[in-house]
Amino acid sequence: MPENTEAAPETQKAVGEENGHAEEQSTEETNGVEKKEDSLKEKEEPVKEMKAVVLLSFGGYKGVKIMKKPEPTPQNGEVLIRVKACGLNFQDLITRLGAIDSPPKTPSVMGFECAGEIEAIGEEVEGFEVGDRVVALPEFKAWAELCTVPAKFVYKLPSEISYNDAAAISMNFVVAYIIVNELLSLKPGKSVLLHSAAGGVGLAIVQLLRTIEGITIFGVCSKGKHEELADAGIDHLIDRADYVNEIRKISPEGVDVVLDCMCGEDCNRGYGLLKPMGKYLLYGSANVVTGETKSFFSVARSWWQVDKVSPIKLFDENKSFSGFNLRHLMYQQNGADYVRSAMNEVFKMFIDGKIKPKIDSTWAFEDVCDAMQKMHDRKNIGKILLDPAQEPKPKPPTPVKVKVKKEKKEKVTSPTKEEAPKAEEAVAEENGKAEENGKAEENGKAEEEKPAAENGTDKVEEVKVAEEVKAAA
Amino acid sequence: MPENTEAAPETQKAVGEENGHAEEQSTEETNGVEKKEDSLKEKEEPVKEMKAVVLLSFGGYKGVKIMKKPEPTPQNGEVLIRVKACGLNFQDLITRLGAIDSPPKTPSVMGFECAGEIEAIGEEVEGFEVGDRVVALPEFKAWAELCTVPAKFVYKLPSEISYNDAAAISMNFVVAYIIVNELLSLKPGKSVLLHSAAGGVGLAIVQLLRTIEGITIFGVCSKGKHEELADAGIDHLIDRADYVNEIRKISPEGVDVVLDCMCGEDCNRGYGLLKPMGKYLLYGSANVVTGETKSFFSVARSWWQVDKVSPIKLFDENKSFSGFNLRHLMYQQNGADYVRSAMNEVFKMFIDGKIKPKIDSTWAFEDVCDAMQKMHDRKNIGKILLDPAQEPKPKPPTPVKVKVKKEKKEKVTSPTKEEAPKAEEAVAEENGKAEENGKAEENGKAEEEKPAAENGTDKVEEVKVAEEVKAAA
Repeated sequence: MPENTEAAPETQKAVGEENGHAEEQSTEETNGVEKKEDSLKEKEEPVKEMKAVVLLSFGGYKGVKIMKKPEPTPQNGEVLIRVKACGLNFQDLITRLGAIDSPPKTPSVMGFECAGEIEAIGEEVEGFEVGDRVVALPEFKAWAELCTVPAKFVYKLPSEISYNDAAAISMNFVVAYIIVNELLSLKPGKSVLLHSAAGGVGLAIVQLLRTIEGITIFGVCSKGKHEELADAGIDHLIDRADYVNEIRKISPEGVDVVLDCMCGEDCNRGYGLLKPMGKYLLYGSANVVTGETKSFFSVARSWWQVDKVSPIKLFDENKSFSGFNLRHLMYQQNGADYVRSAMNEVFKMFIDGKIKPKIDSTWAFEDVCDAMQKMHDRKNIGKILLDPAQEPKPKPPTPVKVKVKKEKKEKVTSPTKEEAPKAEEAVAEENGKAEENGKAEENGKAEEEKPAAENGTDKVEEVKVAEEVKAAA
Repeated sequence: MPENTEAAPETQKAVGEENGHAEEQSTEETNGVEKKEDSLKEKEEPVKEMKAVVLLSFGGYKGVKIMKKPEPTPQNGEVLIRVKACGLNFQDLITRLGAIDSPPKTPSVMGFECAGEIEAIGEEVEGFEVGDRVVALPEFKAWAELCTVPAKFVYKLPSEISYNDAAAISMNFVVAYIIVNELLSLKPGKSVLLHSAAGGVGLAIVQLLRTIEGITIFGVCSKGKHEELADAGIDHLIDRADYVNEIRKISPEGVDVVLDCMCGEDCNRGYGLLKPMGKYLLYGSANVVTGETKSFFSVARSWWQVDKVSPIKLFDENKSFSGFNLRHLMYQQNGADYVRSAMNEVFKMFIDGKIKPKIDSTWAFEDVCDAMQKMHDRKNIGKILLDPAQEPKPKPPTPVKVKVKKEKKEKVTSPTKEEAPKAEEAVAEENGKAEENGKAEENGKAEEEKPAAENGTDKVEEVKVAEEVKAAA
């Protein structure tokens, strides 16, 4: 598949610093002869480009740009996917903030989840054909019109699953499946405390817990979502503000399982709620992003706050503490086969009608920062998707403050929100317009509860974080 | 059931200090009228007595005495069992040493496990009748001719299960069942590192693991036992001396599960052997008793040595750490129903021929210290039982150095081994005689490997421990 192997030299210069991935590819050893031929060919042809969500620097939203990049080519073991739908996950927020471990080298195309059609196949790939409908869980690079992914992280889609549904279920339900069906092995009659119950993974976990008889679910989420989640299958909707006492009121002896994607201080609180023979499962670190002060130091604190657990205490108290980190399992711990078998189970459950994704909203690449902000503010109920083909929302009418210095070299196709700070009220209004796009029941109400100004304050703080992170780095 | 409600006043004075339990019972509030009548009755009748293994003080074997005590009477919620067989468990050693948490008030009848026939039933007991064949897991008091146990810790025996088999399977297989079938929920193809594989619980775990397809078992035990365990169902018999490297040689990537009843430094070693998605389960603390120097300070160190586990590390490494402590679950954490349902499963498996206890040896009460020493030295293969009806081994021919001071008040029916230090060689010979009792294949070979003198040294050290424990208390 030597088509579009790499950008022509002059193009590569043009995209300059921000094109880390393409550069890395071009320096990889390939057949020398072919390489030269390609270069000649490409000099004659115009470089094919694609749109991508690129992280230029860690921190606030201003580091996130929509850019044109040379189309990638699948290397050995990779497939090239024409992306139709992308999933937004919490680890995208953690990545942007730079709080993720082993972060990508910026600039880097963002995203861990996409669905689409295979457009080309690299060498040494078996079991895939051009035209296959697939979903993929690459480590970064998913949010682009085209995406190269190692075949071991690509899963063929049954015809019953649409691209949107695929992007909505694959990450969330694989996490939920491994937690509920592999790690917990719950017996009927047990009780579960679930943090972020209204998020994509939260709702996926609820659906899988509902396949077991007599499980009592305590779902923690902000009060504003309780009404909309009335039919989600959660037995007790608990406000986050005082969840420990709320749960103790209903179940004085505590719960059998805590599913925690928050980490930080919540670990200590939740552990105390465990009954004997209870299991604590930490599967995320959302507090890294949503700490109250949102400074680099609060990020660090959210880790320090976690008390270490004494094995002797676990022995004395008949408790267990588990960690689950899909990213590490897949990309660092050789867990591709394990995840593939979980993915197959998820597909089966979808086809059998046992699970059904709840999609909160779908956004254009250009509006990715609004989408991220919505997740940051915990205003989504269910999965947030990105659609590379979707038209961006109309821009605010106020003039855009364009930054020129370093970024003028970049082919920025859409200003991000931070470049139009005065337009924040307009952004809030945009959120309102999304409701008119047929998503009123999904994201409308929560949005209305918080004044637009608060949204704005958060964003400004995020920018500050970026600078603090840089300063500390 | 006012028969034998309590000892007559003069008897109580006679058994004096050592009869803590009987005293406690007699001071409990009962119907005042009945009490008086009983006292009158008993003044006329001779006080009925029973033989029991009593712990007079924590530490070495000299604190363990075989004594006559007034027959106990079941209180509300209790049944009285005529004991036919008792189980020796590692926690008996830990109790004797005083290293158990919430230790009994000495003097106290020892033992956590007995099987026998119900002889009387207290008030407010349902589901049991006099004459029922039962096994019981009381918190202490099991090693006596008669034992009162709260009915919630008593389990009716199916007719297929003998008293010996009951005492051999109940504690060990309930622990094994909860570990293997409730806590691990192992999928086929996983690998398990099992400490103390030759012990009662270890062999029970092996049998239950063998009911799952394709489990690879790495069983750690002393080299001397490997030959005898050739057919036990353990895939890789590993010598304790260098087990980490031994296992790495066979499985460089480690194991999926570590089952650890050692604690201490082994926790840290074993955790490092876990694969991603691996589970560490701590279910005992044998290192408390078998630390190299066997001093009080080494007991304490075996706890300090255990590294605390960071939840973040578990999250990063996709690992879990669980603790299981049957004693706490049953007596402190309201887990009687949970244990009863596990016990029923164990009985079913026994009747179905899926499990079969391995009995190492059966001992008279009078020889309980030899039995404990055998377990201490890890020389048993399978369960050690006590039989209240069994005749003690012939005493050594050397004159016994009788202690007279404090102990002369006690009704000691048999000298313990420490009272005859010069008889140690003879004791070793006794062990030899046990072989003639038809147990040659079971405990003979291991015994021969260690010189008798070593046995003796251990015992002397134990006495030292007793003093150190006392000094520190």
